[in-house]
Amino acid sequence: MTAVESVRWSADGGAVDIIDQRLLPGTLQRRELRTVDDVCDAILTLAVRGAPAIGVAGAMGLVVALAPHAGEERTPFLSRVDALGERIARVRPTAVNLSWATSRLRCVARATEGSSRDVLDALRAEATCILDEDRDMCRRIGEHGVALLPDDARVLTHCNAGALATGGIGTALAPVYLAAERGRRVAVFADETRPLLQGSRLTAWELAQAGIDVTVLADNMAASLMREGRVDLVIVGADRIAANGDVANKIGTYPLALAARHHAVPFYVAAPWSTFDPATATGHQIVIEHRAADELGRGFASPVSPQGVSVYNPAFDVTPAALVTAFVTDRGVLRPPYRFDLAGHAGDSAV
Amino acid sequence: MTAVESVRWSADGGAVDIIDQRLLPGTLQRRELRTVDDVCDAILTLAVRGAPAIGVAGAMGLVVALAPHAGEERTPFLSRVDALGERIARVRPTAVNLSWATSRLRCVARATEGSSRDVLDALRAEATCILDEDRDMCRRIGEHGVALLPDDARVLTHCNAGALATGGIGTALAPVYLAAERGRRVAVFADETRPLLQGSRLTAWELAQAGIDVTVLADNMAASLMREGRVDLVIVGADRIAANGDVANKIGTYPLALAARHHAVPFYVAAPWSTFDPATATGHQIVIEHRAADELGRGFASPVSPQGVSVYNPAFDVTPAALVTAFVTDRGVLRPPYRFDLAGHAGDSAV
Repeated sequence: MTAVESVRWSADGGAVDIIDQRLLPGTLQRRELRTVDDVCDAILTLAVRGAPAIGVAGAMGLVVALAPHAGEERTPFLSRVDALGERIARVRPTAVNLSWATSRLRCVARATEGSSRDVLDALRAEATCILDEDRDMCRRIGEHGVALLPDDARVLTHCNAGALATGGIGTALAPVYLAAERGRRVAVFADETRPLLQGSRLTAWELAQAGIDVTVLADNMAASLMREGRVDLVIVGADRIAANGDVANKIGTYPLALAARHHAVPFYVAAPWSTFDPATATGHQIVIEHRAADELGRGFASPVSPQGVSVYNPAFDVTPAALVTAFVTDRGVLRPPYRFDLAGHAGDSAV
Repeated sequence: MTAVESVRWSADGGAVDIIDQRLLPGTLQRRELRTVDDVCDAILTLAVRGAPAIGVAGAMGLVVALAPHAGEERTPFLSRVDALGERIARVRPTAVNLSWATSRLRCVARATEGSSRDVLDALRAEATCILDEDRDMCRRIGEHGVALLPDDARVLTHCNAGALATGGIGTALAPVYLAAERGRRVAVFADETRPLLQGSRLTAWELAQAGIDVTVLADNMAASLMREGRVDLVIVGADRIAANGDVANKIGTYPLALAARHHAVPFYVAAPWSTFDPATATGHQIVIEHRAADELGRGFASPVSPQGVSVYNPAFDVTPAALVTAFVTDRGVLRPPYRFDLAGHAGDSAV
């Protein structure tokens, strides 16, 4: 069992080699991004998606975009690092990882002495470091999480917080991959995740690729599955976690947490430490993005809702901390009471 | 405000005039069913759907199919009534209303004296009676239910239990239509209802046609809407109600009931008296139909789940009676404790 690699260096090192997620689940096609236009286009059109994955792709993409200019003088080259870094970061401004990763490279560029070629070498090393850190983060989440899986675990997940969303083996899916790697039996139920179907299109695909038993269901079927006693635990990812433990994640996470609580099924949130936001006191302060009406009514063979009808289409919801059994992080498993507003506090309590 | 008429006699009385629901929400096209083939095809292909509506359409369809044979001798004509009635009933064998309505006509045929023309007249009168009873049933549910709606009511519903599913103004939607008829402001949130999208395709369409404010949302968004305090009550229909009050209804009803309970939002089930099944003690005895995998993965512009992946696709779920605030029936509003195993008991307690 091997998870797919959604982002990696090409064999010649001159390109970012990604899986084009727009073609999934029908076609597995890798694409080599060699220019800043390639990189921006891939991020904009969601050929590469998932906050950790686009952070990694953005950093590596900045390096390949700079490579042809390594003969330049140091000063114009540093200006170019800033300009291209800013351009890449602007493609998806709400994705923190993208601006964080490109800023990190711009900072390294300024701090590196020598020629533009020396700077480029340092940037390549740093981008590789960001990729490796992401892989390590996933694996640590997996190590902490796999201990929570019973034998023959039946895991329900929502959206895609897997290998396709990260540089490594995912966040929510990391414990599943590690269990499979160790020869333990594990089966996954993947909510299709309306409206954009990341569950059926991506999670089901990457697990099937890895030879892991996966079953797709509509989001509204998860509660029935729990009622039938067929779910041992729920694991989801997170987009942001407030200081009190409230979790913003893909729309549909919250009703899953309600159903899990009703059926006494453990509800775990797997996320890297960077997802915890001490500056956000509770989930009530998290502003939820609302998206286009067409995401609901179109995309089918023919339109499925009447022309011009109103649509409620939030991209995320907030799950109150009280419904979260534990957080599975790269620093350990955190159980209630949650308090992430003091730097290091939650880390200290990690086990 | 006028609800659409999904099933009615054609102007000349020689055909069943239906809305072809397969073309919704894109095109409103009425079809005249004039032969037994027309009738069976319309029921089989879901041009007409919803248990009460197909019962009505089946009865009226039997009459129009018999009309050309009204010159026959009485005995062969009665055989024809049985043969065509059986043929229509077999088209959707699990739909109780269809076999109930055609059996009722076959019974009337045997009981009617005189020529085949006399029998046909009696059958036409009986079919009209079934249509009228269905319309009355809807209106009585509406009368009992409208009292439960606050001013400016914001109602959440699931699937389609409206005019398109009945001969009248629906079951779950009947209180909404009556409120609008009386000039009261009412807004409806319609779950899209995966996988077959009866909510976005049908409920949103018929409410928009009637000029009633309607907003479509994905099923997994309903809990967020409740958390925002934007839902005053939930009303859904029912396929079967067990003696203890457990409700089998379209998949996705149960998580809605869980979310409603969590947010202290009243959860009402609107259904005609015929839906209560004293022979079924609890919901655990209700066998749930599982449907084809393709319903989840296909239907979009391109396949959305990997070829051959497992699918969990129950058509219905069971909502425990404890989550039902009240039943809204044609005989009155029934509140806990529920006990439908004694004939007439619940009816006696109706208010």
